[in-house]
Amino acid sequence: MSAEIICVGTELLLGDILNSNARYLGQEFAKLGIPHYYQSVVGDNPERIKSVIEVAIARSSLLIFTGGLGPTPDDLTVETIAAFFETPLEERPEVLQDITDKFARRRRQMTDNNRKQALLPVGAAVLPNPTGTAPGIIWQPREGVTILTFPGVPSEMYRMWEETAIPYLKSQGWGKEIIYSRLLRFWGIGESALATKVTHLFDSVNPTVAPYAGNGEVRLRVSAKAASESEANLLIDPIAREICTIAGDDYFGADRDTLASVVGQLLRDRHETLAVAESCTGGGLGAMLTAIPGSSEYFAGGIISYANRVKTELLGVSRELLSQVGAFSEPAAKQMAAGVKKQLASDWSLSITGIAGPDGGSSHKPVGLVYIGLASPDREVEIFEYRFGPERDRDTIRHLSVCHALDRLRRQLIARGD
Amino acid sequence: MSAEIICVGTELLLGDILNSNARYLGQEFAKLGIPHYYQSVVGDNPERIKSVIEVAIARSSLLIFTGGLGPTPDDLTVETIAAFFETPLEERPEVLQDITDKFARRRRQMTDNNRKQALLPVGAAVLPNPTGTAPGIIWQPREGVTILTFPGVPSEMYRMWEETAIPYLKSQGWGKEIIYSRLLRFWGIGESALATKVTHLFDSVNPTVAPYAGNGEVRLRVSAKAASESEANLLIDPIAREICTIAGDDYFGADRDTLASVVGQLLRDRHETLAVAESCTGGGLGAMLTAIPGSSEYFAGGIISYANRVKTELLGVSRELLSQVGAFSEPAAKQMAAGVKKQLASDWSLSITGIAGPDGGSSHKPVGLVYIGLASPDREVEIFEYRFGPERDRDTIRHLSVCHALDRLRRQLIARGD
Repeated sequence: MSAEIICVGTELLLGDILNSNARYLGQEFAKLGIPHYYQSVVGDNPERIKSVIEVAIARSSLLIFTGGLGPTPDDLTVETIAAFFETPLEERPEVLQDITDKFARRRRQMTDNNRKQALLPVGAAVLPNPTGTAPGIIWQPREGVTILTFPGVPSEMYRMWEETAIPYLKSQGWGKEIIYSRLLRFWGIGESALATKVTHLFDSVNPTVAPYAGNGEVRLRVSAKAASESEANLLIDPIAREICTIAGDDYFGADRDTLASVVGQLLRDRHETLAVAESCTGGGLGAMLTAIPGSSEYFAGGIISYANRVKTELLGVSRELLSQVGAFSEPAAKQMAAGVKKQLASDWSLSITGIAGPDGGSSHKPVGLVYIGLASPDREVEIFEYRFGPERDRDTIRHLSVCHALDRLRRQLIARGD
Repeated sequence: MSAEIICVGTELLLGDILNSNARYLGQEFAKLGIPHYYQSVVGDNPERIKSVIEVAIARSSLLIFTGGLGPTPDDLTVETIAAFFETPLEERPEVLQDITDKFARRRRQMTDNNRKQALLPVGAAVLPNPTGTAPGIIWQPREGVTILTFPGVPSEMYRMWEETAIPYLKSQGWGKEIIYSRLLRFWGIGESALATKVTHLFDSVNPTVAPYAGNGEVRLRVSAKAASESEANLLIDPIAREICTIAGDDYFGADRDTLASVVGQLLRDRHETLAVAESCTGGGLGAMLTAIPGSSEYFAGGIISYANRVKTELLGVSRELLSQVGAFSEPAAKQMAAGVKKQLASDWSLSITGIAGPDGGSSHKPVGLVYIGLASPDREVEIFEYRFGPERDRDTIRHLSVCHALDRLRRQLIARGD
C-alpha cells in the first residue's frame, strides 16, 4: 500500500512552472505516514497519461493526480483516466450549479468551456473545490486502486486536500502507521563536515538519519516508525539531542523553523526590535522577516538604500566615504547599520551592501563580495565580510546575504542568553 | 529519440525541497528542441532506482539523472546505475585530485567520504563539475541508451549542463529539429476569459497555442517546429501579434520578462525613477524590482514602514489618520506613496498597505484587503483597492499585492506613451 503522485501538464515538462504541488503532497504523505516512493510528470497527452497510469497501478495503490482539470481543450486528466478504465463521463448538475454560482458571485462571465469541468466519470465521487471552479474526483475504478484528482492551482489543491482528501484517506485506513520525521536545520557548516561529525548515526535503523543540503542550509532528517506520535518522539528525542549537542550553534531550528522565524522568536522573547538597511538585497531581508505572521511585534521596518543618495540622506552615510571607499565597503555597511538603527529607533539593526552581479564587479571588489553590518543595543557595529564567489548567480548571492545576516543576528542573540 | 529526467532523492519525495532541477532541464530541452515526455522522482533506494531505469529505457533514449552524487552513504545514483548495467566502478585518479585540490583551495578539511565521489563506472566519461566536488558521468552503457548524471545542487548542475552537456548532446545529433517556443504573459485577465478570446487559435497545429495560469499570471505558449529559429519566428510572429492585439494592455511581456523587468524597461526608457513604501509586503516589492540586474538605474530605494512609527516619522503619514482610520486604508496608502516619493526624490512611487493575514482581519477589514498607492510625476496619487479574499494565504496575498502594484505602474507608464 503506497501512494504515487502523477502531475499532468506540458507546462511542467516545458519548465514553465515549478512543481510545488509534488512537494506539498510529499510533505503531507510524510506527515500522515503514507508510504510514497515514486512521482511522475507527464504532458497533456492522453496516450502518455495512460502509459503512466499503467506503470503506476502496478506499483502503487493510491494515485494522486494534479493538473489538467481546467476549462481549456488541453485539460484532459479526468477524461483520460475515465477512458483508461473504460468508464463514460456524465454531467453532474450539482457541480455545474456550483460553477455557475461562483462566476455569478465574482461578477465574471461564465464561458462555455467551463461547462466541461462538470463532466465526471460514472461512479466517481466529487472532491469539492471550495475556491476554484474545477472539482476533483475520488474514485475506485477497480479493486485496490484509489484515484484522487486535484487542479494544478496550488492554493485550490491545498484546501481540497485538507478539507476532503485527508479525512477520506483516514476513513479508508491510510495513515495508521506513523512515520514521524523531524527535520533539523543547520547554518554555517557544510554538508560533509556535518556528516563526518554525526557519521555514527547514519547506520541507525529506527529512527533513521539522513542528510540534505542546498542554498547554504544543511538539514538532517530524523525519521521514526511508531504506533503514535509520542512513541515516535521517544525514539527521535535522544538522537536529536545528541545531534544538537554535536552541532552547537550551527543548529538553528527544526521542521518549519526558518532563520527568520528563529530570529523573530529570540527578539520577541527579549522584547527587542529590529530594523534593516538593504542595498544589494533590495528588500529581500525585510520580505523574509515579514513572511513570518506576527513579525510586526519585533520588526520595525527598514530603508532600502539602493541609490547612494538614499544612503546619505536617509541613513547618514558620509558622502566622502562613498566617493572615496565606495558603497561596497566595511565602513559603508557600518554607517548603514548605525543609521537605520537611529532612524527607526530600534534595538538592533542589520545592513547589507555588496555586489550581487552579474555586472558591477572588479578584480579588487568581485561579484559576490558582501558586507553585513550588525548593530546591537550596546556595542560597536560589527561587520562581517563574505565572498560568495563570482561564479554564483545574482539570486543565490542575494539569498545567501539575507540568510547570513539573519544568522549573525541569531548567534548574537543566543550569546546574550535569556 | 526523447529525453527523460530522473530525479533521485528521498528529500524530493518527502517534500523537503522543490524540484527546481526538473524545471531547469525542462526549459533547456524545450530550447534545444529535445523531445521530453516524462519525468520521474524516486528515493535513495537502489531497487526502486533500478525499476525506474527499467521503465525509462523502454521509452526514452536519453536519461538525465540529478541528485545522489554527494559524499554521504545515501548518495547511490552512480553505483546503482552501474549495478543496473552490471558494470564495476573504478577510482579515477584525476577526479580524486580535483576534489583534493578544491578542498585545499577553500581551506576546508577533506573528509574520507568525499573519496567516494571519485568512483565512476568503467567506460563512463567524466562530466566535470567546475564548482562542486561531485562530478557527473556521460555514459552509453548499451546501444541506444545515453546517461548523464548531475549533482542535485542547482548551481553546480546548471554550469555542468551549459559547459559540457549541451556541446556533447549537440555533437551526438540531439537538438537538430528546433521546437521554438514563445511564452506570452498576461496580467489582469483570468485564464478562461483569455482562452475564450483566443479560442480559435487552440486548433492551430504549427504553431500550437496552449494556455497556463498560476499566481495571478496567465500565459499562452506559442510553439513552432521549424528547421531554424528564424523560420520558427516566421510562424510564431503573426499569431503572437494577433494575440497581443486581442489582449491589449493585459499582455505585458514574453519569455523571461517579468512585471518588474517590463516596468524597469519602461522607466529606463523615460529616464525616470521609482521609490516604494511597503507595509504588508515588507520589502517584497523592492526585492522583486532589484532581482533585475541593472535596476539601480531607475530604482532609488524605499522605506519598509512596518511599524506605524516609521509611517509617521519617515513617510509623514499623519498620526491622527492612523489612530482614526488606521494603516490599512486609502488615505494611509496615499500619504505613504506621497511621502516616499518626496523623501527619496523619485519621479514615481508605489505604496502597499493591507492585511496579509492569517491574523489581523475583521469583518470590516478582512484579511486580503490591500491598498496600493501610485504617485506619478504630475498628478494626484491614485489609490487601488484589492480584496484578495481571506481564503488566500499570506504568501499569496503578498505576492499578488506586489504584482498588482507593478501592473498599475506599468499601465500608467504605457498610457503615457513614448
